[in-house]
Amino acid sequence: MSQSSTQNRQWLLASRPHGAPTTDNFRLETTSIPEPADGQLLLRTIWLSLDPYMRGRMSDAPSYSPPVEIGAVMVGGTVSRVEKSNHPDYQPGEWVLGYSGWQDYDVSDGSGLVKLGTDPEHPSWSLGVLGMPGFTAYMGLLDIGQPKSGETLVVAAATGPVGATVGQIGKLKGCRVVGVAGGAEKCRHAVEVLGFDQCVDHHAGDFAEQLKQACPQGIDIYYENVGGKVFDAVLPLLNTAARVPVCGLVSGYNATDLPPGPDRLGLLMGTILKKRIRMQGFIINQDYGYRIAEFQQEMGRWVQEGKIHYREQVTDELENAPQALIGLLEGKNFGKVVIRVANNNL
Amino acid sequence: MSQSSTQNRQWLLASRPHGAPTTDNFRLETTSIPEPADGQLLLRTIWLSLDPYMRGRMSDAPSYSPPVEIGAVMVGGTVSRVEKSNHPDYQPGEWVLGYSGWQDYDVSDGSGLVKLGTDPEHPSWSLGVLGMPGFTAYMGLLDIGQPKSGETLVVAAATGPVGATVGQIGKLKGCRVVGVAGGAEKCRHAVEVLGFDQCVDHHAGDFAEQLKQACPQGIDIYYENVGGKVFDAVLPLLNTAARVPVCGLVSGYNATDLPPGPDRLGLLMGTILKKRIRMQGFIINQDYGYRIAEFQQEMGRWVQEGKIHYREQVTDELENAPQALIGLLEGKNFGKVVIRVANNNL
Repeated sequence: MSQSSTQNRQWLLASRPHGAPTTDNFRLETTSIPEPADGQLLLRTIWLSLDPYMRGRMSDAPSYSPPVEIGAVMVGGTVSRVEKSNHPDYQPGEWVLGYSGWQDYDVSDGSGLVKLGTDPEHPSWSLGVLGMPGFTAYMGLLDIGQPKSGETLVVAAATGPVGATVGQIGKLKGCRVVGVAGGAEKCRHAVEVLGFDQCVDHHAGDFAEQLKQACPQGIDIYYENVGGKVFDAVLPLLNTAARVPVCGLVSGYNATDLPPGPDRLGLLMGTILKKRIRMQGFIINQDYGYRIAEFQQEMGRWVQEGKIHYREQVTDELENAPQALIGLLEGKNFGKVVIRVANNNL
Repeated sequence: MSQSSTQNRQWLLASRPHGAPTTDNFRLETTSIPEPADGQLLLRTIWLSLDPYMRGRMSDAPSYSPPVEIGAVMVGGTVSRVEKSNHPDYQPGEWVLGYSGWQDYDVSDGSGLVKLGTDPEHPSWSLGVLGMPGFTAYMGLLDIGQPKSGETLVVAAATGPVGATVGQIGKLKGCRVVGVAGGAEKCRHAVEVLGFDQCVDHHAGDFAEQLKQACPQGIDIYYENVGGKVFDAVLPLLNTAARVPVCGLVSGYNATDLPPGPDRLGLLMGTILKKRIRMQGFIINQDYGYRIAEFQQEMGRWVQEGKIHYREQVTDELENAPQALIGLLEGKNFGKVVIRVANNNL
């Protein structure tokens, strides 16, 4: 069932996952299209972004954002077209970046929307390299990572929308960039297309040894998206005064229990002490919202000049969103995952 | 055997400890007093500082400083008087802060020495509140901790030279300050003399619960000197955007193995991510040497104005240094531990 002009499909959170999400955790419902009241506008979703943070929002464990309620529409960033407007600042036909979630239509009072004009060249890119993932890469690397020319930067999830951008900015700043990705094809892409110096396949049996070989001068910056065995291999290679922006830990998002011992919490703290390491978690909008204009200007120029390459994995149809998110959490995507909810030219 | 003007007592590292150091790890030797060559001076140790970092220097595990070699003089900060000088910048009778280690006499070419004048009022304080421990407290709290008025600051080892200074600076900055110390007497001192708002005894069976009660608004800054069960109690109380300067982990310095599981390394990283926490290790001189003048000026004024209280635990005689260090690592000291190697007026 494709998007229609008479009905609103919505993916609701049906139940909270225990471990990896399954399609049973989601429920598709169809309702009528809402009518915008005075001061409101009706948005039609064209692109929906899928991102690892969504796994956290499906849980009710304490986190930086409240969980999605059971029976509520799944959250998500969207690029939409204004269909109707009772709002003085918006006209039908305009494109906006917003937060409509996993549904065809949404009403908005305009708050939180970013205008994208009437004919954006790559509207979905506002969900990736020019949007939240790109901004996350940019601030985490530049503000916490503080890259200096000649330093070694290791990036996990190297071909994802954050990792690919981190590594390419690292190259622009003169770093030696080593990616970590799952599989030979992604690793080849990181080196041949993104311009990383090396990329190591974390599926390899001797992954830790390969990473060590790829970092003969140790690691000055580790941009953390993954956790788990990738971090385990990174930890002994961190140099004195290394910086570790902690952006994500996707390998652990489906975990249900702590792993067996020994307990390495004290080992990590001892390493932070002895090597004078800075580890810092961050949530892009809360921590860096005030620097969005700087990011948009600089990243926009880099993309226009061809200095930053960007890869999307497009899945058609809103129906496929749950399976696409499940695959993303398993690392099966190759590039930024977006759902084409409706044709650009509808 | 007291200090003499004809012999030089030296405590050498006899063997590396496995677990807690014992007196067998040290060996006292007596040699003749060295003669300063041209451009050198002879220093007579009056005060020797004992500090937790010394445990690390007794080991050969990788760290930020090279280990003391077996058979070499134990390292340590010292306040000395110039006995002879073949150096144009120094006169006999002057006092200097230096790094002569655990011995009566040392020759120096002047590098690394800090002049203390000919009649310093409290010469040993240069080893504590006005020296390395005070500087460590000052920079770790102000630069990494970034205290803001109204925030809750928790300080481990609250009556030690670093912790006591951290907490008092925190009060000057308007924080609610909660100390953690071992025993009722130290806790009373932290509140009644140092002016902390509360202090919790980590020997208490319900220590974690008591700490939680003492921090009804959670913890914004945890100044880490201890690790172990104190950190375990702190971790769930950390607020969003908390800062954790990692200055020391004295509870783990004698550990020989990792503790049993579950493995909480990932739990710590997940907390850093979800709560956007900054954890940062630092070594005072490497990281902040360039800001020593600022520290000396501000701390000197605070001490003079009576805004910072300082407590020393003085042990007489160089012979007692090993036992005093062993006690320090067990938390048996109360205040800054210094050895009076010779009488001030000798």
